[in-house]
Amino acid sequence: MKKDTIKKVTSQESSSITTKSILEIRSTTAKQKEDQIIVEEPLEIKIRISTGEKIASYDLSVTMRTPGDDFNLVKGFLFTEGIISSDQDIIKINYTDTLSGSQGNSITAHLSPHTGFSPDSLQRHFYTSSSCGVCGKTSIEMVKQQSPYLMKVGQPRIEHTVLSHVLHEFSAHQDLFNLTGGNHAAAVFDSKGTITHAAEDVGRHNAFDKLIGHLLSKQKIPFHAGGVIVSGRASFELMQKCWMSGIPLFAAIGAPSSLAVELAEDTGITLVGFLSQDRMNIYSYADRIFISDDT
Amino acid sequence: MKKDTIKKVTSQESSSITTKSILEIRSTTAKQKEDQIIVEEPLEIKIRISTGEKIASYDLSVTMRTPGDDFNLVKGFLFTEGIISSDQDIIKINYTDTLSGSQGNSITAHLSPHTGFSPDSLQRHFYTSSSCGVCGKTSIEMVKQQSPYLMKVGQPRIEHTVLSHVLHEFSAHQDLFNLTGGNHAAAVFDSKGTITHAAEDVGRHNAFDKLIGHLLSKQKIPFHAGGVIVSGRASFELMQKCWMSGIPLFAAIGAPSSLAVELAEDTGITLVGFLSQDRMNIYSYADRIFISDDT
Repeated sequence: MKKDTIKKVTSQESSSITTKSILEIRSTTAKQKEDQIIVEEPLEIKIRISTGEKIASYDLSVTMRTPGDDFNLVKGFLFTEGIISSDQDIIKINYTDTLSGSQGNSITAHLSPHTGFSPDSLQRHFYTSSSCGVCGKTSIEMVKQQSPYLMKVGQPRIEHTVLSHVLHEFSAHQDLFNLTGGNHAAAVFDSKGTITHAAEDVGRHNAFDKLIGHLLSKQKIPFHAGGVIVSGRASFELMQKCWMSGIPLFAAIGAPSSLAVELAEDTGITLVGFLSQDRMNIYSYADRIFISDDT
Repeated sequence: MKKDTIKKVTSQESSSITTKSILEIRSTTAKQKEDQIIVEEPLEIKIRISTGEKIASYDLSVTMRTPGDDFNLVKGFLFTEGIISSDQDIIKINYTDTLSGSQGNSITAHLSPHTGFSPDSLQRHFYTSSSCGVCGKTSIEMVKQQSPYLMKVGQPRIEHTVLSHVLHEFSAHQDLFNLTGGNHAAAVFDSKGTITHAAEDVGRHNAFDKLIGHLLSKQKIPFHAGGVIVSGRASFELMQKCWMSGIPLFAAIGAPSSLAVELAEDTGITLVGFLSQDRMNIYSYADRIFISDDT
């Protein structure tokens, strides 16, 4: 469980955690506090193989990760993907960022020619990135989609108890979870807290996509009149899907990542995290949520 | 919270849930019971665009999803990725599996030529699949990596209270989670339950890769002498990474997916789910875990 107080961060942790001023609501009391948030940043993984006169380079993947222990991340990735079979297959591993502003977000592993890597071997099972270039510039600018929708300032205005109500209703829409305990859910609600549609999936992005696909089919996008709730945490990718769909309010039962908060701030989305019956944290655009004392 | 009893599954839910006989341990009592597990299967997403005489086809992505509501999943995916801008951009959408045994795991969306899709536009931000072909055959055979390691029958043998001990120790290794509440963790332990290394990341696959990268650097792979514990659920991909690393025991605090259970069964891995202080479910190879009454 997340501790309630701000703890001193060790130097090793400093690149993995960021601090931000948020609005915490408990019951009917709101206060500004400092919160510690897990850092999420893209990491580009490349390999390079020299065989005689030829040097071959491949851009393998971009993963959204927490900085720290990056070389082990790359090694473990290459090994569990079957690209290397031992530590000795890596001759050298180093950061290869070229532009400023993104230090440490691109890594090249120089492989021994004996590894016999064939790009064709990846084609079956591997989600390759087609040379994304994400990490060459300020990361968030390069990764993010451009949404055609602008959020309306202060709209909708929602009482904070409406979110508690949505949370309560949400579990009744999670049939698969109630049976298996093994999947995620996402739902859309109006400004009165009525859930109008919910979707479930083993993957949280898929649950969100199913929800958005439904709204699209019903010609309900952009959906300015309410918000979405998700069962897990708020990642950059989910926040991006929210933005692309013109939804001004995103509530997560879990924690947000740093990049999710950053994107919410950049795009005018109200981001609520750690939503529970009597408590929530608001990370951005808290003006959409008001507290009523009429309890 | 997952309900404790087996409920009747509606016809709509039948493709999303599977039932399996598992060993449930509560305190010092073990019993066989039926458990309901969320289904995880690959879905291949393709698009096709006809412009005059030319027909262009693109294999966009493979996602591990729960069957059901698939067309909305594809629509939502295409929309939030910026490939379509309205429902009308899709002329037709249909399943396109070609071989038997994988019905409903490949979908083609036929797009209006007006969408102006350019494959180059994906290159920045999108993890494309290079024509994976996953869904043409029995899905699990095609997606999975081939590990060089065989698991040893019945080894290691671990007392069930050792897993409770590991769980207890695990939280002391989650520094980032204790501060932020926003990330995953993975750790490796020996047969006595001592955690020898742990890793954290905002992504669970990354936390696992960091752990494996460390073991690889220390020449400790295959790791036949103990197991791994993860903070979240057991997905197919994590189970595959476990297999590739020659680790015979995988314990998750959350639920497993159907494909994770299937892979564990195929490869000789003991899969434990819903691990808590006094309770766990064993989904495969329960012979590695024994119950001692000496409490």
